[in-house]
Amino acid sequence: MNEKKEIETQTPKRRLEAFKNFPMVPRVVFGQGSFNQLGNILMPKRKNADAPMIFLVDDVFEGTELINRLPLIFQDQVIFVSADEEPKTEQVDALVNQLKTAFAEPPSGIIGIGGGTLLDLAKAVSIMLNNPGSAAKYQGWDLVPRAASYHVGIPTISGTGAEVSRTTVLSGPERKLGINSDYSTFDQVLLDPDLTVGVPKDQWFYTGMDCYIHCIESLSGTYLNAFSQSYGEIALQLCREVFLGGLTPEESRNKLMMASWHGGMSIAYSQVGIAHAMSYGLSFILGVKHGIGNCLVFQHLEDYYPEGVAEFHKMKQKHGITLPQGICTSLNDYEMERMIDISLGMVPLWENALGSNWKERVSREQLENIYRKI
Amino acid sequence: MNEKKEIETQTPKRRLEAFKNFPMVPRVVFGQGSFNQLGNILMPKRKNADAPMIFLVDDVFEGTELINRLPLIFQDQVIFVSADEEPKTEQVDALVNQLKTAFAEPPSGIIGIGGGTLLDLAKAVSIMLNNPGSAAKYQGWDLVPRAASYHVGIPTISGTGAEVSRTTVLSGPERKLGINSDYSTFDQVLLDPDLTVGVPKDQWFYTGMDCYIHCIESLSGTYLNAFSQSYGEIALQLCREVFLGGLTPEESRNKLMMASWHGGMSIAYSQVGIAHAMSYGLSFILGVKHGIGNCLVFQHLEDYYPEGVAEFHKMKQKHGITLPQGICTSLNDYEMERMIDISLGMVPLWENALGSNWKERVSREQLENIYRKI
Repeated sequence: MNEKKEIETQTPKRRLEAFKNFPMVPRVVFGQGSFNQLGNILMPKRKNADAPMIFLVDDVFEGTELINRLPLIFQDQVIFVSADEEPKTEQVDALVNQLKTAFAEPPSGIIGIGGGTLLDLAKAVSIMLNNPGSAAKYQGWDLVPRAASYHVGIPTISGTGAEVSRTTVLSGPERKLGINSDYSTFDQVLLDPDLTVGVPKDQWFYTGMDCYIHCIESLSGTYLNAFSQSYGEIALQLCREVFLGGLTPEESRNKLMMASWHGGMSIAYSQVGIAHAMSYGLSFILGVKHGIGNCLVFQHLEDYYPEGVAEFHKMKQKHGITLPQGICTSLNDYEMERMIDISLGMVPLWENALGSNWKERVSREQLENIYRKI
Repeated sequence: MNEKKEIETQTPKRRLEAFKNFPMVPRVVFGQGSFNQLGNILMPKRKNADAPMIFLVDDVFEGTELINRLPLIFQDQVIFVSADEEPKTEQVDALVNQLKTAFAEPPSGIIGIGGGTLLDLAKAVSIMLNNPGSAAKYQGWDLVPRAASYHVGIPTISGTGAEVSRTTVLSGPERKLGINSDYSTFDQVLLDPDLTVGVPKDQWFYTGMDCYIHCIESLSGTYLNAFSQSYGEIALQLCREVFLGGLTPEESRNKLMMASWHGGMSIAYSQVGIAHAMSYGLSFILGVKHGIGNCLVFQHLEDYYPEGVAEFHKMKQKHGITLPQGICTSLNDYEMERMIDISLGMVPLWENALGSNWKERVSREQLENIYRKI
């Protein structure tokens, strides 16, 4: 739709962006129980007995059976990380320092096991093992000079698309912004839907909605082309089956894992939009997590995404989800202004949502009104 | 559907197959006009001035503007190849010998530009530059010991899925069978829908139907899991839009290119079925090309794929396609038996289509009856 028109109005930079040489995950395993293949997958990537595999694992798995199933040999190390807060540049720097101090040889690889937080941490740590300075230095687009260490992504909750994207969202001292680099992309992804058994219902919903909102934003965006559209449409269809259909729990887990995968791919030649831009502000100032932050904003975006917001309310109702309220009431004026600044700083997201003249179509007052409702 | 039941009845080999570590194309560019990026894409892959890029190009492009757009430098060579016949192992061996004789250094890379024939040739040549003996030696599953040269796939007709698959279908002295290897997968794919402008209508239809039949076979197969299902469903949806919807020619080209891509991916954890198995026989004995061969068989498979065959006839009618007749009338008994042998030799395809007890569900007589109708 309007693809021709859109191309004609593109700036030269946008035109070039349309032809981006997109990095795909070069290896993927899918299947219930495929986690048992991890040992075989890692073996040929082990450099020697002194170069360990480092497993960064969401600390909800501490003491669970999953840990007994990790294929640990030699000096391999498991590091449990809390996903209560979103990943931070200092946290990445600290992990990298810890690994450099603890081992004589650089690790053979980094394996992230968890949700978006753990996957993004694994990407960032693998990049920073091979690049100098602080992770904050590389927040932005294509600033990483050297390839990352071998890194594997194993999602245990579905929706973020972090398993397939070339971004690594981090909160730094200055801002929340991804390390957007071809080197972020995982070398290997393992998709075992059984690993998502036991995710708490609220978290399941918020993270799944990350994918749903993702799709609504990319499919209605001005950056869209036929490549991203086809991935976005299948992800949206899968979300509808999962959140509005009558699937068995097993089918639902399988399909949400694939929705996340395709939703992530749909960003290849597209972008997210207003909910993500505003959710970034919410996250940076108040520490609201990404999934729930998107939901908190998206529920009030009926002027921009009318059908998507109506369907979102239907999904919310079907699963008895009640979103928290009054999140922004205690904000002072300075914090509100800062939050609006951060949101408006996400230029590609606004440009995707509203076109190149987006600044004429959105005001600070409109943003404040939406934030005040949250 | 029935996924649980299916897993329980799997043999151990099938179980392992279900967890295959699937190789994806690690780099992809999509966009109308993206062919102009080829020079930039190849530059960092050039080893030195004596290690040329070899462009294997469908000879329909000889003397056309596309050839002027090839980013030729140093000793780069363009080799035009006819796609009138399907690729053969001797042809691969001859091309490899030619390159080894002509250049002091091994090529920097092989770029295949054309339909499935040219893409499969490019894959096979890049493998055989680094592996000893004849290509015939590697027909089968996972027989290639050494990685291929850098190779790029640029489809100029949509439907085969060869741009994304890990197979390289070749006719050898003994049989028509793919080199199924992780090393077959292209290092880079460039998808420029404008390159498919000017494809003759019949060829457009037959090759597009390769994708459509592909999807019908994989979606109704017993090997299917949620990964392959999601790719198959989007490819099928795109085929329906292209062949039954009211798209503009531009949209139609964009969407058929994506249908081919996703259709190819859907084979990751799946397989094609009866039409492909029988089409292989047709191709080996009579030299019938793959796309039209699939159509010739599929039209008579209403007992196996009733809805798909009905929809196929609708598509055929809408585009005024008349399939040739009397293809098999001149076959003698020996040739017919040989054709049935070759078809029944495609065990994974039959097993996917009819389950592990497939031998009880199909007879030589049934196959002969179908072949005699063609």
